[in-house]
Amino acid sequence: MKKIERVAIVGGTHGNELTGIYLVKKFERSPNLIQRPSFETLTLLANPKAYEIGKRYVDTDLNRCFLRQDLENSSLSSYEAQRAKEIYGKFGSGGSHQADLVVDLHSSTANMELTIILASKQPFNLQLAAYLTSFHSKVKVLYSTTRNQGTPHLDSICEFGCTVEVGAVAQGVLDATLFQQTEELVQAILDYTEAYNQGTPPPVRDTLTVYHSIQTIDYPRNEFGEIQAMIHPQLQFRDYEALHPGDLMFLTFDGQAIAYEGEATVYPVFINEAAYYEKGVAMCLTEKQEVTI
Amino acid sequence: MKKIERVAIVGGTHGNELTGIYLVKKFERSPNLIQRPSFETLTLLANPKAYEIGKRYVDTDLNRCFLRQDLENSSLSSYEAQRAKEIYGKFGSGGSHQADLVVDLHSSTANMELTIILASKQPFNLQLAAYLTSFHSKVKVLYSTTRNQGTPHLDSICEFGCTVEVGAVAQGVLDATLFQQTEELVQAILDYTEAYNQGTPPPVRDTLTVYHSIQTIDYPRNEFGEIQAMIHPQLQFRDYEALHPGDLMFLTFDGQAIAYEGEATVYPVFINEAAYYEKGVAMCLTEKQEVTI
Repeated sequence: MKKIERVAIVGGTHGNELTGIYLVKKFERSPNLIQRPSFETLTLLANPKAYEIGKRYVDTDLNRCFLRQDLENSSLSSYEAQRAKEIYGKFGSGGSHQADLVVDLHSSTANMELTIILASKQPFNLQLAAYLTSFHSKVKVLYSTTRNQGTPHLDSICEFGCTVEVGAVAQGVLDATLFQQTEELVQAILDYTEAYNQGTPPPVRDTLTVYHSIQTIDYPRNEFGEIQAMIHPQLQFRDYEALHPGDLMFLTFDGQAIAYEGEATVYPVFINEAAYYEKGVAMCLTEKQEVTI
Repeated sequence: MKKIERVAIVGGTHGNELTGIYLVKKFERSPNLIQRPSFETLTLLANPKAYEIGKRYVDTDLNRCFLRQDLENSSLSSYEAQRAKEIYGKFGSGGSHQADLVVDLHSSTANMELTIILASKQPFNLQLAAYLTSFHSKVKVLYSTTRNQGTPHLDSICEFGCTVEVGAVAQGVLDATLFQQTEELVQAILDYTEAYNQGTPPPVRDTLTVYHSIQTIDYPRNEFGEIQAMIHPQLQFRDYEALHPGDLMFLTFDGQAIAYEGEATVYPVFINEAAYYEKGVAMCLTEKQEVTI
């Protein structure tokens, strides 16, 4: 078993997601909170310029800048491309402070509760996620096979890693309850890692419910790309709940309901995430699976 | 009695408040929805550049650009200062399309429900507000004597006017329920105005509950201006509810609760509005008053 020697806790990959930013600031004021005997914990405010201007990003979404060939491409000069190289050069493989585990703290305007997005189904990641689900009833585990194809996220730079995605909370807003729950999650991750290093990881159930991303759904749009409908009130804030064929999905501005036309029951997440309007994503559909650990 | 000859419905004074923007777009596609026999209704997307970049404003808050001396000051050249002059030159006194009534559509991350913010306590405004409170149980009426001193808002450019402030909804997000309720409010305003012009305004109760803004409260901050606490979970989303001396107001990042130390019961609004962090406003305190119409 490989020991975890360094953990990186990252906030502010998106500059308007305040929960992670203020949590990193807190940990930087009180580093003792994240120290553990068997490994080092470092923190990072990933996109300080975006935080300064109160936006998700300056030039481009930092969390889509971690494709290996982009990190090696010296011609990419956007602010976020450069930050990605700096972050990889610090925490990535062969970096100045190579980390074994990265925890990237995000928030969402969707009702994601306390979501752990796994970068891979490595046994450590799965066991950690299983531990966290036992720790708090609002913890959900999300996994996407497509996540690391095409546009890998920040949490892909280390062998182990996860993204913490909490919500619903508006961009540019601190929700005290979510702040405290996110802090408890980070503490639980560090406690689990310490026990793992000591060879005494806490026992977890041998199956885990994982929501597996299978498809994104865009808003209905006209020929100019303008959206023609909103998330239906019956679906708003219903992330992780079953959506059956025929259930209502969108409501046009003229009041016409549009139903989900798929053939199978799915579990939508990231419903009405503000940052995804420009990405052509009204929600992500997932399948609910029981995974053996 | 002066007849109302032209009404201006304005959306997108803040570029990331989508409810008003998409409602104005809808009315521009279907102008028959806002036509009435006795007056003309015009629409305006007030800050199209801010909407394009998904931000509240480009250079400065457009809704603080309507001071008369600023409108006459040719040296002010920010995008919003210029837009304010254009808007005043169109709908303002002596403008190309001078309006008698302006309805400015906003949204908030605070739980403002369906708030009507009055620009003045003119009898028409009060009677309209009283009608709207009878129309929908979520309608609240907010008034601030300080609103038109210093930094008058867009709705100050006409004799009659109000700001519609709906929430809670995140910036950059459409909430279908709030969209429909806002549209119903606009229709009710137009219907009331038509009846008023016909000399048959619907009867309203002779008293009206008005929340009167008396003070703003900032977040606790350190010597660098950084906030030190969040809205307390017991206060989050409790806009328009009574806050008594000793009730909890803030929670520091270290988990210390901070109580409201005033001497009188107040009714906070704009609690945890994202756009007000930079303005030094965690909430506005109001007094609840019964006003005779």
